[in-house]
Amino acid sequence: VSSRTDSEFDLIARIRARAGMRDDVSLGIGDDAAVVRLPAGHDLVVSTDTLNVGVHFPAETAPLDIGWKALAVSLSDLAAMGANPAWCTLNLTMPSADRDWLDAFLDGFLAVAKAHGVALVGGDTTRGPLSVTVTAHGFLPRDAALRRSGAQSGDDVWISGTLGDAAGALRQWRDGSTVDAVLRVRLDRPVPRVALGIALRGIANACIDVSDGLLADLRHVLDESRVGAELEPAWLPTSLELAKAFDEATRIQLQLAGGDDYELCFTAPPAHAPAVMKAAKQSGAALTRIGRIEAGQGLRLRDPDGVVSAAPRIGYRHFDASREARDPA
Amino acid sequence: VSSRTDSEFDLIARIRARAGMRDDVSLGIGDDAAVVRLPAGHDLVVSTDTLNVGVHFPAETAPLDIGWKALAVSLSDLAAMGANPAWCTLNLTMPSADRDWLDAFLDGFLAVAKAHGVALVGGDTTRGPLSVTVTAHGFLPRDAALRRSGAQSGDDVWISGTLGDAAGALRQWRDGSTVDAVLRVRLDRPVPRVALGIALRGIANACIDVSDGLLADLRHVLDESRVGAELEPAWLPTSLELAKAFDEATRIQLQLAGGDDYELCFTAPPAHAPAVMKAAKQSGAALTRIGRIEAGQGLRLRDPDGVVSAAPRIGYRHFDASREARDPA
Repeated sequence: VSSRTDSEFDLIARIRARAGMRDDVSLGIGDDAAVVRLPAGHDLVVSTDTLNVGVHFPAETAPLDIGWKALAVSLSDLAAMGANPAWCTLNLTMPSADRDWLDAFLDGFLAVAKAHGVALVGGDTTRGPLSVTVTAHGFLPRDAALRRSGAQSGDDVWISGTLGDAAGALRQWRDGSTVDAVLRVRLDRPVPRVALGIALRGIANACIDVSDGLLADLRHVLDESRVGAELEPAWLPTSLELAKAFDEATRIQLQLAGGDDYELCFTAPPAHAPAVMKAAKQSGAALTRIGRIEAGQGLRLRDPDGVVSAAPRIGYRHFDASREARDPA
Repeated sequence: VSSRTDSEFDLIARIRARAGMRDDVSLGIGDDAAVVRLPAGHDLVVSTDTLNVGVHFPAETAPLDIGWKALAVSLSDLAAMGANPAWCTLNLTMPSADRDWLDAFLDGFLAVAKAHGVALVGGDTTRGPLSVTVTAHGFLPRDAALRRSGAQSGDDVWISGTLGDAAGALRQWRDGSTVDAVLRVRLDRPVPRVALGIALRGIANACIDVSDGLLADLRHVLDESRVGAELEPAWLPTSLELAKAFDEATRIQLQLAGGDDYELCFTAPPAHAPAVMKAAKQSGAALTRIGRIEAGQGLRLRDPDGVVSAAPRIGYRHFDASREARDPA
């Protein structure tokens, strides 16, 4: 009730003024619902994620980073489907109506929206412990979705970018060490692989984004596809900063089990390797082959000496853990 | 971590098993995102609402009622647009993974979903203070949306059903009185006016659902349409139970300012009155004419003696009030 506290309608007016527009938005913020138009012959793709203070991010996280990440993680899910992102809604629960906090949050949120041409078309502002829900909407040509269930025995397993950077930053933060600036950016401001997902349509057999850790997320693909896989941890793409910050055993553990990378892990037949390379070039994403899909169920690791062992059950987080797994849609 | 606590994946499996299906759902719960197909020539309509414990419902509210209301209020927004509801996502934040609570919540949520042919296609389960976000998706023929901005001078103002019942139950509960069972059902289990909204396409000039109170919501229509209105409080449709429970002055105050009715308030030219009556019959909704749109800005009340006065600024709730206004989309 101080002068820094605004009513909900003032907050909404503030959001509305900055929400951005697209030609296919018939009706954005300001009515009972938003109305948007999909291109003919395209299906709607919808993904939603909730981030809660103290669970998904520490209370001291900068509002800009919260805004950035809230939208980025939902766009990452659309990317994993091969969808074009288009519209989003924002449900923002705040302990009080703090104008400065909101402005900073929107700076991050709308930077991601603008980078991917996404319009904010609706939402809800409510009072309560800080919590952000973003529902991202996109579209893709009929039956072109990159599903988790499409992996085939013999497929190569690919990963974009580098793995483990976000987990490395989190580890440093929890250890009370100085957090490497490059790793920290990977944790706080993930970049969804939207262009890569679109480029992989018709090339990848299955795809998922790595939010809960490589092993945990790849297991979802294997379970839904009823296949197995063998990975070569020595092949995992690694940033210079991560390699410098941790010994090899710790690093590989971070890369296999750490979440929040938001890289795409996908499978494709070996015959598609040239097309995969072309998609990498088109989208500006480095791609690394890290293993192969096999008919035999289960997830195995092959060490540099050729010894194969069952992958540990790490990265599978429980509801009551400090950071729960994020799944599905 | 007790035996009554499940991991997030068990919760999701539980939700997925009961989510319902539609022929136009290509991919429901279980992938990175849902994929659904809109009928040709139709636009997508999206609305989202968050309900927080202690703000939108008391902690002791039955989980079945929370589930029911969470979906009903979002479908009410689609109804106000004249849309066919089709799909929804559910973001559920719970303090612990309680299986029995979830089952009861789903009983209410899915009863509403089933009644309106809505499929639950995705969502997110997270840990934190109880909070429910529902995003409802529907469709309507191109350019057929019932907007807030379409009211014209000379239009009749109509309301469906009866007004004030939910606010009456809330008042009784706050006063510590016995809560009338009929009024209580109106508060706990609102029925979205989906069939009426669809029937009003091409007939109503403007439409809104009454969630924050008649005066507050009608003001949104007036503001967006740049018109005014005169209402006759004596004409407000009143349930027998509400009339019995309160004196006339209190009752009218509840009817003008009380929220949570989820009736549709719409405007239509007098020449459309026969079509309005037909829509009422088709949809099984009683409709009452309660006033008229005027060119002169502002909202006025005419008492039984014909005395006209400016409507009080009630029903406009602030962010920091015990129940904030819900707006927009």
